Amino acid sequence: MKIISDSTRVNYGELLKRPANNNPELRTRVQEIIEMVKTDGDKAIKLLTRKFDGIDIDHLEVDEQAIIDSQDLVDAKQKGAIWQAAKNIEKFHRAQKAKNIEVETMPGVSCKLIYRPLKRVGLYVPGGTAPLISTVLMLGIPAKIAECNEIVVCTPPPINLDILYACGLIGARVFTVGGAQAIAAMAMGTESIPKVDKIFGPGNSYVTEAKIQLASQGVPIDIPAGPSELLVIADETGIPSFIAADLLSQAEHGTDSQVVMISTSQIIITETINEINRMVNLLPRKAIAMDALSNSLAIKVDSIDRAIEISNLYAPEHLILAVNNADKYIGSVENVGSVFMGNYSPESAGDYASGTNHTLPTSGFARNWSGVTLSSFLKTITVQEINEEGIEMLGETIMALAKAEKLDAHAAAVRVRLNYLKELEL
Amino acid sequence: MKIISDSTRVNYGELLKRPANNNPELRTRVQEIIEMVKTDGDKAIKLLTRKFDGIDIDHLEVDEQAIIDSQDLVDAKQKGAIWQAAKNIEKFHRAQKAKNIEVETMPGVSCKLIYRPLKRVGLYVPGGTAPLISTVLMLGIPAKIAECNEIVVCTPPPINLDILYACGLIGARVFTVGGAQAIAAMAMGTESIPKVDKIFGPGNSYVTEAKIQLASQGVPIDIPAGPSELLVIADETGIPSFIAADLLSQAEHGTDSQVVMISTSQIIITETINEINRMVNLLPRKAIAMDALSNSLAIKVDSIDRAIEISNLYAPEHLILAVNNADKYIGSVENVGSVFMGNYSPESAGDYASGTNHTLPTSGFARNWSGVTLSSFLKTITVQEINEEGIEMLGETIMALAKAEKLDAHAAAVRVRLNYLKELEL
Repeated sequence: MKIISDSTRVNYGELLKRPANNNPELRTRVQEIIEMVKTDGDKAIKLLTRKFDGIDIDHLEVDEQAIIDSQDLVDAKQKGAIWQAAKNIEKFHRAQKAKNIEVETMPGVSCKLIYRPLKRVGLYVPGGTAPLISTVLMLGIPAKIAECNEIVVCTPPPINLDILYACGLIGARVFTVGGAQAIAAMAMGTESIPKVDKIFGPGNSYVTEAKIQLASQGVPIDIPAGPSELLVIADETGIPSFIAADLLSQAEHGTDSQVVMISTSQIIITETINEINRMVNLLPRKAIAMDALSNSLAIKVDSIDRAIEISNLYAPEHLILAVNNADKYIGSVENVGSVFMGNYSPESAGDYASGTNHTLPTSGFARNWSGVTLSSFLKTITVQEINEEGIEMLGETIMALAKAEKLDAHAAAVRVRLNYLKELEL
Repeated sequence: MKIISDSTRVNYGELLKRPANNNPELRTRVQEIIEMVKTDGDKAIKLLTRKFDGIDIDHLEVDEQAIIDSQDLVDAKQKGAIWQAAKNIEKFHRAQKAKNIEVETMPGVSCKLIYRPLKRVGLYVPGGTAPLISTVLMLGIPAKIAECNEIVVCTPPPINLDILYACGLIGARVFTVGGAQAIAAMAMGTESIPKVDKIFGPGNSYVTEAKIQLASQGVPIDIPAGPSELLVIADETGIPSFIAADLLSQAEHGTDSQVVMISTSQIIITETINEINRMVNLLPRKAIAMDALSNSLAIKVDSIDRAIEISNLYAPEHLILAVNNADKYIGSVENVGSVFMGNYSPESAGDYASGTNHTLPTSGFARNWSGVTLSSFLKTITVQEINEEGIEMLGETIMALAKAEKLDAHAAAVRVRLNYLKELEL
């Protein structure tokens, strides 16, 4: 961890820069995969699964019975944990249900905003070194609350039993396919895998690149996801072993994960780094964490206000406020995915079970993107109902603006109605 | 207008297909423009403005005094119309303000959803044959309600006086630049034009292509906009001259606009077409409207339910329900941008002044995208505060899930806290 002291000459734009993500080779390879899936459908999926996962798949869709059977195969303690997490996620996302809005903007002019679920949503669930059971819950539960008709999950083989069990809870159809080919299949549809209305979920660089390429063809995606990030702000009341554990929990995600610590206390910084050096040795993913930490930064500042200023500049995915009276500062936090208040809110609580969604903007996108919420699974429709009185009140306004925009037929659509009403009155 | 009769053999997928929008030449030219703006900033903008608009611009930003002066130059009647439209738009969008959400998911575990405005938003306002004053209001008013810090408007020269006046009302900074170069400038920033957090607004194929290309680099956009569309569903209570005027008001937008009529009454279809043929001759934009109408469709169906089924398949930007008791049917309307209920709700009312937003999904995107609402100018942040009791309640759940995902440091971040609390208790 590099330690620096805040000063007016520090160029945070440069210091806090994320690794550039410009890989023309990746782009071309993902383009080729998308093209293959577009042309050959299931056949391409099977070929690519053999190539990338080394596995021959006959039926892409997981048999329903296998999902049902997983209920008996997952152990009770694990089921209890999944159930508790699901309950909290459900409680927080159900509270996000919005009521229809109805306003009479003028006498006789009523406007409404109503909601409709997306019909069919596609969730990508990574397998591999860290099979993300929690992703199934974080995306599947709001999809259920939104009343999406169908939830499609794609996840690479071999499929983890816990993932299958979680998919059963959310009532998903599960397909054994990973990588860019899974995203392509859900975006365009194949013989077995249905085309979806929106694609969610994290993944490696192939998955992310496929989401971005297909989004530019009009398939909505949740967020352009990148490596995970954590920024911890601590004053002298911060507890070094807690901060160290939080920074490590982020660093173990991948060698490209970023962690930043900002503190008003030099002692806290020094002790946290000592704790990191002690604790990292106990981790199975030590090598990954060490690599991530080598790019990381600890910044000594004069005030918590200044720390928040730097955090807003960096726009982290996760922000821990390990400070006395964190409530005092939340008002000035601008750019962040999710905030963790005080000493007893570890970032891993939000990853799994506090109830908030863990699908959050990374790579500085917290400046202008939001994390996944219930509304990510809904669309809005507006409705207006204008009656005779309304069109007589509003008619002149519409015609004046239409004429100013040189759209005469727009004005005529009002005029024909006003004339009709005038004739009725005669 | 082509007239067809609904039957099980009609292939609506084919009949209602939008013109394909695959233009590799356009893509390359827009790429070049983006590259020029990235490299040469203002210099490129001035060069491109000379090339495309035939105008030499010295200062890209419109002088504040010119905006102030426009107040005296726009005539009173026009100001009144703009003011009335603005008032309705404000009323409907202000009603969309959402309250923060706060839930205790478990004892000691509190989760919140809070809102922050996007700092700086960029609005593209087309000039040319139809200068869209209304676009300034439709995008600028929700941006103001959301409390965005800065509103940037780009619009091509020569700038219409009404547009300038409307920009004054929303307190925007105005830049004299149009086309793909305007989108590139707002996405990346130049010496004069600030980089924005999100880009809104309609435009020609260059503008749309630039928005799509830059969105794939992470700049959020409102919606991938295409040619305007209207579908009218009418029963025997529909009034042919109204329907004809509505269809024409959409057809005059551009030669690529699409209009569709579906009716249970053959008489209404025939009379509407007669009215169109009569009314089109009175339009200054007759040639455009005629061209658009030549691609258009009238469909005779047996029931309004069937008409709505076809409409959901088509997913129009605008839908007029010129039917008796329209309320009865709104529940089954799924895929649409905005709905107009009954005979006295012309589509042009929504374009200008009823209060709903006219920035709506086209090209079938109403299936999985929403139109612009207040929330388009806000982002959400989640906040969790867990206390000692909360982490003791939730700890086991987090650790079990972290271990199942093979992320040991995630579990350790909880364990270190639980151990600390245990020691305190001893």
